[in-house]
Amino acid sequence: MTDTLTIALGQMDVVPGRPRLNVDNMLRMIQEAKEQSVDLICFPEMCVGGYLLGDKFLEDAYCEELMSYNEELLAASNDIAIAYGNIYVNGSTEGHHPNKDGRSRKYNAVYVMQNGTYAERVQENGILPTGVQPKTLLPNYRFFDDERYFFSLYDVAIDYGKDLSALLSPFLISKGDQRIPIGMELCEDLWCHDYRADGEPINITKILIAAGAESIVNLSASPWTFMKNNARDRRVKYLREQSGSFVKYYYVNCVGVQNNGKNVITFDGGSTVYNEEGDPCILSKKGWEEDLMVIDEKASFLPTKRPRGNTIREKYLAIFNGLKNSSNMLGDDPHFVIGLSGGIDSSLVATLLVLAFGKEKVVGVNMPSQYNSDKTKGAAKALAENLGIEYLVLPIEDMVKSNTHILQLDGKPLSEFNLENVQAKIRGASILSNLSAKYRYFFTNNGNKVEIALGYATLYGDWGGAITPIGDLTKTEVADMCHYINDEVFGKEIIPELLLPDALWRFGEAQIQPTAELKSNQVDPMKFGYHCKLLEEITNFRKKSIEDIMTWYVEGNLHEKLGIGLDMMLRWHIDDPKEFLRDLEWFYDTIQKNVFKRVQSPPIILTSKSSYGYDIRESILPVLKTKKFKALKERIMAMDTYMAK
Amino acid sequence: MTDTLTIALGQMDVVPGRPRLNVDNMLRMIQEAKEQSVDLICFPEMCVGGYLLGDKFLEDAYCEELMSYNEELLAASNDIAIAYGNIYVNGSTEGHHPNKDGRSRKYNAVYVMQNGTYAERVQENGILPTGVQPKTLLPNYRFFDDERYFFSLYDVAIDYGKDLSALLSPFLISKGDQRIPIGMELCEDLWCHDYRADGEPINITKILIAAGAESIVNLSASPWTFMKNNARDRRVKYLREQSGSFVKYYYVNCVGVQNNGKNVITFDGGSTVYNEEGDPCILSKKGWEEDLMVIDEKASFLPTKRPRGNTIREKYLAIFNGLKNSSNMLGDDPHFVIGLSGGIDSSLVATLLVLAFGKEKVVGVNMPSQYNSDKTKGAAKALAENLGIEYLVLPIEDMVKSNTHILQLDGKPLSEFNLENVQAKIRGASILSNLSAKYRYFFTNNGNKVEIALGYATLYGDWGGAITPIGDLTKTEVADMCHYINDEVFGKEIIPELLLPDALWRFGEAQIQPTAELKSNQVDPMKFGYHCKLLEEITNFRKKSIEDIMTWYVEGNLHEKLGIGLDMMLRWHIDDPKEFLRDLEWFYDTIQKNVFKRVQSPPIILTSKSSYGYDIRESILPVLKTKKFKALKERIMAMDTYMAK
Repeated sequence: MTDTLTIALGQMDVVPGRPRLNVDNMLRMIQEAKEQSVDLICFPEMCVGGYLLGDKFLEDAYCEELMSYNEELLAASNDIAIAYGNIYVNGSTEGHHPNKDGRSRKYNAVYVMQNGTYAERVQENGILPTGVQPKTLLPNYRFFDDERYFFSLYDVAIDYGKDLSALLSPFLISKGDQRIPIGMELCEDLWCHDYRADGEPINITKILIAAGAESIVNLSASPWTFMKNNARDRRVKYLREQSGSFVKYYYVNCVGVQNNGKNVITFDGGSTVYNEEGDPCILSKKGWEEDLMVIDEKASFLPTKRPRGNTIREKYLAIFNGLKNSSNMLGDDPHFVIGLSGGIDSSLVATLLVLAFGKEKVVGVNMPSQYNSDKTKGAAKALAENLGIEYLVLPIEDMVKSNTHILQLDGKPLSEFNLENVQAKIRGASILSNLSAKYRYFFTNNGNKVEIALGYATLYGDWGGAITPIGDLTKTEVADMCHYINDEVFGKEIIPELLLPDALWRFGEAQIQPTAELKSNQVDPMKFGYHCKLLEEITNFRKKSIEDIMTWYVEGNLHEKLGIGLDMMLRWHIDDPKEFLRDLEWFYDTIQKNVFKRVQSPPIILTSKSSYGYDIRESILPVLKTKKFKALKERIMAMDTYMAK
Repeated sequence: MTDTLTIALGQMDVVPGRPRLNVDNMLRMIQEAKEQSVDLICFPEMCVGGYLLGDKFLEDAYCEELMSYNEELLAASNDIAIAYGNIYVNGSTEGHHPNKDGRSRKYNAVYVMQNGTYAERVQENGILPTGVQPKTLLPNYRFFDDERYFFSLYDVAIDYGKDLSALLSPFLISKGDQRIPIGMELCEDLWCHDYRADGEPINITKILIAAGAESIVNLSASPWTFMKNNARDRRVKYLREQSGSFVKYYYVNCVGVQNNGKNVITFDGGSTVYNEEGDPCILSKKGWEEDLMVIDEKASFLPTKRPRGNTIREKYLAIFNGLKNSSNMLGDDPHFVIGLSGGIDSSLVATLLVLAFGKEKVVGVNMPSQYNSDKTKGAAKALAENLGIEYLVLPIEDMVKSNTHILQLDGKPLSEFNLENVQAKIRGASILSNLSAKYRYFFTNNGNKVEIALGYATLYGDWGGAITPIGDLTKTEVADMCHYINDEVFGKEIIPELLLPDALWRFGEAQIQPTAELKSNQVDPMKFGYHCKLLEEITNFRKKSIEDIMTWYVEGNLHEKLGIGLDMMLRWHIDDPKEFLRDLEWFYDTIQKNVFKRVQSPPIILTSKSSYGYDIRESILPVLKTKKFKALKERIMAMDTYMAK
């Protein structure tokens, strides 16, 4: 019985590309575990070098460097067993060894060692090295590129003409005279329900239990997304149901921040022990933080209830931690200049920066032109005062003049739209990016997801920056997060309430509506609240198309599907089929036409299940009007009004 | 015997996202083939909608629209057989159907039809639909993301617990009373040597021949890379050697341009018929152009020699066609404003634009500051005159003054480096991007691959643009292409010779060395010629690391490995170990530190086997100095001089 093993879960901060730092951290936790008489300490997947290393995995020398740390960990395994994730490379390209791309075959592997030697399996197979097991299931959706880099255990089985079960065997951990079989998995191996062989899910857990595993450990590098821990609970329950018998199931995940260039991805830990019923019973109490969880025989394995998450709170924490722990991108002590327009988006970003880094690290810059109202200028100043940050006002009219002059040397006037862009580029490229270079600070892209979708910002203007903190939040979520921060984080009005709409995105007389203020009386063309929900559907993991939206409209359940009230539809005149169509087509076409801008956007902190960046991969393509679209359009044009079901 | 079938290869221009256009093109070719009594006409992989559609493949409505064209093609198949590539979706997520990501299972498929019905197989399997065969091998390296979108035939075999051979069966094409079995493959299916099962390559061709195929057709969407047609010849020969017996092998590829947002990828056709010996015997004579090749029984199947390519000529054609046929990105009648500095890179880009679009579509803009010499200004003007394009001179000093003024309102002076960036941003963001918006033109990023690697350009300045035509050429290739264009395309000096170095990258007194001219007496810090070759190794398909370069230095074969002379090493003082190390470390570290810029770069036309963009995927990571690096560094520091072996 594994109850006799004291197992520790090392929920550690994994810093990609810094193996020395990570291994020192592991050695410290190993020492601490030894002091607590732990028998087996388990660390996350790819904890030595990081999981999101991009094409560094294609450089053999890089991988060999990461593997070189295995020696140190082997030496540290006296009087303890250690399991952790690292790359395993077989450098040969001969015989069974080449990868599918002809390069070195590389495994995303779990290493198991004890007392200075690699742990043996219940049943060795003569194919895999002792103490090393590759990941079986490789995620290749969203921002995951596992198939690009790694050769799976399933592929090994195919190559050698073996059953998977011939290669999947628990590792033996010694305790006194006993040798206790522990099954090891890596991350996706537990999300097996859609990977299929012989008409059944490829249930790694079941194979390991059948091969004698007395406990299962799953080592993960599982990025945070909202409610994922709850989803994982359901998946473990599913494994229990599929497996017949079940054993204790230890899930260890990392914390920290990694990136793939286009997205910043956060890890919240959430390490959990499940009992033989597949119910969560011991939860890490430290979300987003390191936690050494020691589970000994005195622990209670009674089921516990996982608290239901709060969307905005979790997304706030993702952005907060994504900023705070992003030293790979922003260095160890980053400072910021931020353009403060007096609008809601830049106000939220400035507040997030202050919360993550401190008020002395942030300088607000207001850059008024003739179009900026006293109201927005006042709001920017009020925010800066509320946050206690340094605040500069740099009027741009002189630069607008000299820029306009040079652009009209051909004798032809600039259009009003050209002049809008001129202003935005002066603010972004001429002032903010140069100021940030002068001070060695960073500046931010303050766009939200709706703006990024619609390209509603100026390339080389407010589209620029080192990072896009709220680029995966809809405008509704931006407003919600402002409320959350005022109410729950500060407990007082920091972000001016005059920027915050009511539930139907209406503003009072004294308030400030969203506006770019690049010409007179400009108001954003978005139908906030409604467009936010549309965008969520279009960019969901299961992507809804314009045809789906139109079908819902015809069926009269659009409001239900989007989770909005009929009052919101009336507020934006979407009950009028012609306005619905005009707007929807504009919305959808505009998103497609602005891929070229997203190609040049800075990294976005991921907070949804489908973020622009590297999660959504876009070719620059024309808008395609399908036959189904045309048929639906005709139908809707013939409608008098939206008929709610 | 298949000799009795007259087969046509429809080497067509595939425009991604425009199925109506593509299908009309196919219908036209089908009609033409009928007039020439063709029995079977074959079109490329994914020719209905395009191959590089990004996440459009995740939208069911988009895929259904592409599939809706199957009806039209079926109707057009009276009196002829048709084979072509298109998506196949089984929308159900029940039973065997979900994809590994839980979404709809989608196939990159070949459709085969004749006389209004889908073609039957020699042996139907009860699993796959009649007339439809999924791609077996899915490339998932470089810019290929097949595993992200498609479910392979191999995965189907696994899911149903079948041998692959049970699902791979030739299609029967009727001619008179005969039914002739033709084996169908898709693209990667022929590059099978590194995909393995049971210790052997997964040889689809062999399986199809064993199942009775009297000919094989391979439908491809195979991007151009240098010498790929020659590599393909070797692979077909390999298939012949591996397969025991062999049959005639028809390879049809598309032409045209597709993109994935970050890279523009060109297709050169190269459709080829191979004889029973696996030797190429009939080659498309139309590189990069549409070609309807009709191969009847009178054709000669004697082996022919494929002309060896000329690197610079092929790369020139890739860029020329990549620009000319890039309507998805640039629209149907694009015009350009291009910044002409009087340097070699912008001169080449301007010349390429004129060649691709015509001189009346290009406006050159010289934007001098106090640092620009009469020599470079003269070179820019001379180029514009040689090309016959409109030419503007817009001095930037006034804007530099007003920008400097606003940036020094804090009383602190800008550094010399800050002032350099200020100038570049005025040129790129304030002038070129606004001028292009004013005229509804495009502007270009004129950087070469060495600059893009080193980040040697200013973000929101010369880093911007709609497309990066020469972003995958090293500086040496830039110079080579200038010579090629002067000598072979124009037959006279269009690009001023005073910009072109000798073979050791030396310039005469009267010539112009590469310089950004952002401060006095500035000269580019690159060791051209040598750095170009270093970069080629580092970004090759088989990526060499800094440790490899150092090892070659120690071994005395660096010059051989890089293919440069010792004179080039002396010219850049690389024979001095300390200078070699200083420079190499700077070069390598600088590349790593500039990932953040590449994240925000415009699309690059791909001309190498590893282009920045989406071909090389980079996380923003710190520089990692490996133990091997440190040991090698110590060794090299102890050397007196480079010792050529």
